[in-house]
Amino acid sequence: MSKTKTVYFGAGWFNDKQNRAYKAAMKALEENPTIDLENSYVPLDNQYKDIKVDEHPEYLHDREWATATYRGDLTGIKSSDIMIGVYLPEEEDVGLGMELGYAMAQGKYILLVVPDEDYGKPINLMSWGVCDNAIKISELQGFDFNKPKFNFYDGAVY
Amino acid sequence: MSKTKTVYFGAGWFNDKQNRAYKAAMKALEENPTIDLENSYVPLDNQYKDIKVDEHPEYLHDREWATATYRGDLTGIKSSDIMIGVYLPEEEDVGLGMELGYAMAQGKYILLVVPDEDYGKPINLMSWGVCDNAIKISELQGFDFNKPKFNFYDGAVY
Amino acid sequence: MSKTKTVYFGAGWFNDKQNRAYKAAMKALEENPTIDLENSYVPLDNQYKDIKVDEHPEYLHDREWATATYRGDLTGIKSSDIMIGVYLPEEEDVGLGMELGYAMAQGKYILLVVPDEDYGKPINLMSWGVCDNAIKISELQGFDFNKPKFNFYDGAVY
Amino acid sequence: MSKTKTVYFGAGWFNDKQNRAYKAAMKALEENPTIDLENSYVPLDNQYKDIKVDEHPEYLHDREWATATYRGDLTGIKSSDIMIGVYLPEEEDVGLGMELGYAMAQGKYILLVVPDEDYGKPINLMSWGVCDNAIKISELQGFDFNKPKFNFYDGAVY
Amino acid sequence: MSKTKTVYFGAGWFNDKQNRAYKAAMKALEENPTIDLENSYVPLDNQYKDIKVDEHPEYLHDREWATATYRGDLTGIKSSDIMIGVYLPEEEDVGLGMELGYAMAQGKYILLVVPDEDYGKPINLMSWGVCDNAIKISELQGFDFNKPKFNFYDGAVY
Amino acid sequence: MSKTKTVYFGAGWFNDKQNRAYKAAMKALEENPTIDLENSYVPLDNQYKDIKVDEHPEYLHDREWATATYRGDLTGIKSSDIMIGVYLPEEEDVGLGMELGYAMAQGKYILLVVPDEDYGKPINLMSWGVCDNAIKISELQGFDFNKPKFNFYDGAVY
Repeated sequence: MSKTKTVYFGAGWFNDKQNRAYKAAMKALEENPTIDLENSYVPLDNQYKDIKVDEHPEYLHDREWATATYRGDLTGIKSSDIMIGVYLPEEEDVGLGMELGYAMAQGKYILLVVPDEDYGKPINLMSWGVCDNAIKISELQGFDFNKPKFNFYDGAVY
Repeated sequence: MSKTKTVYFGAGWFNDKQNRAYKAAMKALEENPTIDLENSYVPLDNQYKDIKVDEHPEYLHDREWATATYRGDLTGIKSSDIMIGVYLPEEEDVGLGMELGYAMAQGKYILLVVPDEDYGKPINLMSWGVCDNAIKISELQGFDFNKPKFNFYDGAVY
Repeated sequence: MSKTKTVYFGAGWFNDKQNRAYKAAMKALEENPTIDLENSYVPLDNQYKDIKVDEHPEYLHDREWATATYRGDLTGIKSSDIMIGVYLPEEEDVGLGMELGYAMAQGKYILLVVPDEDYGKPINLMSWGVCDNAIKISELQGFDFNKPKFNFYDGAVY
Repeated sequence: MSKTKTVYFGAGWFNDKQNRAYKAAMKALEENPTIDLENSYVPLDNQYKDIKVDEHPEYLHDREWATATYRGDLTGIKSSDIMIGVYLPEEEDVGLGMELGYAMAQGKYILLVVPDEDYGKPINLMSWGVCDNAIKISELQGFDFNKPKFNFYDGAVY
Repeated sequence: MSKTKTVYFGAGWFNDKQNRAYKAAMKALEENPTIDLENSYVPLDNQYKDIKVDEHPEYLHDREWATATYRGDLTGIKSSDIMIGVYLPEEEDVGLGMELGYAMAQGKYILLVVPDEDYGKPINLMSWGVCDNAIKISELQGFDFNKPKFNFYDGAVY
Repeated sequence: MSKTKTVYFGAGWFNDKQNRAYKAAMKALEENPTIDLENSYVPLDNQYKDIKVDEHPEYLHDREWATATYRGDLTGIKSSDIMIGVYLPEEEDVGLGMELGYAMAQGKYILLVVPDEDYGKPINLMSWGVCDNAIKISELQGFDFNKPKFNFYDGAVY
């Protein structure tokens, strides 16, 4: 039986395109035999006190809620083996950017996963530099997380 | 005479709104007596071999150029005293996000500077958490960089 | 069968109260199915050359002994998955404080474990801030170390 | 004129002995020509919203207040050149311990300052190991912070 | 069945003596039941695009090749549990030195492995200080990587 | 008057060639107006208790001496603004390698300085990757340490 790794699942859920990529990447991880998804960290499932700010906008200004959710995500990154960023070149996300910088500092292997149809489009220079590898979503199911190698994103920067 | 600090000037230059904020923040730093702007790091002035990719799009795929520009920016962050992010809540930038994460790891004081008219609007949770303080552009000229204190962004998160 | 984690067991052994908490926490870990206690690090069992300074006070001034024991403990922290601090609010310990700061820098999940009767009493602000979670000893046996989450200490600071 | 360094002034203020050491160390720094005390960080002067919990015990449970004061102190450490710990061997402090661990991770020079009459008494092993030097309070006024060297604490550990 | 650890295998392959030590250490790891060699990182097997510069000297000046191979090795260190340096006191290697410094920063357990006939000969002070333990090649097969302890190199420095 | 920076002067002193490079680099720093040499750290001048092991070989096995000298050098690196490595491509040094790795972790700007006649010769891949810039000794006197930029070593790797 295969050894398995845990991941921090960095991905947006704010529009249709993000949701499609989110689900496709999640499904690939479920079927990847080198992944321990049960013990991985999914930010959407880990908001403080299970409060979702879109349903409870009064928490938008709650510093206790924000601090705990922020630190929860940092805890998720440092406690996981791998940092995954589901990356849409045309909808880049500042929060994912910061998570990538933190994951780099914590010595995590950083893998960007890009929808097949977007792979190769220009991405931000700092995301290009911080990642240890960048693959298509269709490659995620078969990716061997026990042998995490470096490679360049095979596309442009801006 | 005042002691002075150097900054890494994290700011976008891709549209009118960004350009206005860029110039306003730069002007405030020029007039701030606690800032040594001459020895500060401005990414726009430090692209490898002085090549600007908007004028030379063939460099979009040049890995040597990308590596050197990326590492140049990391060098700018680690060699400066302070990390400044000119921050537009409605135009957040993944590259700035990654720079904030890296600056946090390097132990830099992180200051977000927000246009007065945007101050208070919701910002990404990870930017909210990573910054040590967040002020209006109009407060930048008088900010004492020799006494960098912590405070919360006085606005919402999402 | 459950995946297991190793811990660095930060706990004092200098008086009766500490010894009771030490034993109760150790027993809970022995019975926790997510813990690999055999490969965990217990400082009391890892003094250099198996010399205990209370029996051999001449080592109190031995810099070789002190260096090796100090570095042994740092090695234990960095080589373990989790940092546990058995924490007595009324008998806080500077050595545990330093270990918590080092564990934070190494990206370890930091769990404070407090005797049930003391849980809620004020603790030092820096211990409050550095921990990723703080639970009662009675909760330790059932704690799932494969899903380490953030939460605040449910008590006061001073 | 001499170059000057800023310090994070780690010291307790909870009883007479601590207060005497606090004042003696502060006075020595005021007279040390290599110190820029004006721009140094004194935790007692930097509690969030200038609220002191001993006067306002209702803040003991306020997580916003605690978070901001905790992060204020971390900001003070990372933004200062030097970490000073006023260290009483018989009244060691867990909060100072954690600050020492954090300062080590941030690459700060760590100096313990011990009252003359206590110098040489046993100190905790982790404090012994983490400091880069340890001197008497009477040596603080003349200490050259522009030439920070390593040396062992000239006393015992326990 | 034993738990296993992955290693970064830092070792030279440039002359006979290095090759003998390389093979002896590799064989010991193969037979060590606490090692997962399949998922470990061997630099010689991970040069970018499988290009070996000794066969293709035109890559000596290729910055893309150099960047990717350099980052590949850093990825190998941060993604492995343990840093092993096969260490020949009379043929010390600057590249291994830098890898040791990087591994220290990433919180890896650092083990130097020295040929039996060379064990005890003087080694560089910085290698002496950075390692967490140093053993003979003959001890490597039986070394328990699940209980990584600190010890000094039992030999001289220069 | 110019702002000045302190350096950690990493350079060997074990043979004629090293000594020539050592002296030439030191002279260039003395004449560089952006350098504060008085407060810089020169390892040769900072051996513990001023004991030189070549004159006192009995210290080769003294763990107190080795620990203090090792930690002295680490203190020098973390307390200086800049890490300089006087680098001889044909006489690379494992100790300098480790110092480079440590300096990288501490966020120091890393400058390799190579004798003019050796500039361009192949250097170790890890040294190539870790440095932020690499210049000739003849360029050191005029190098502006207040504007530390990234560039590649203009030579080969192996």
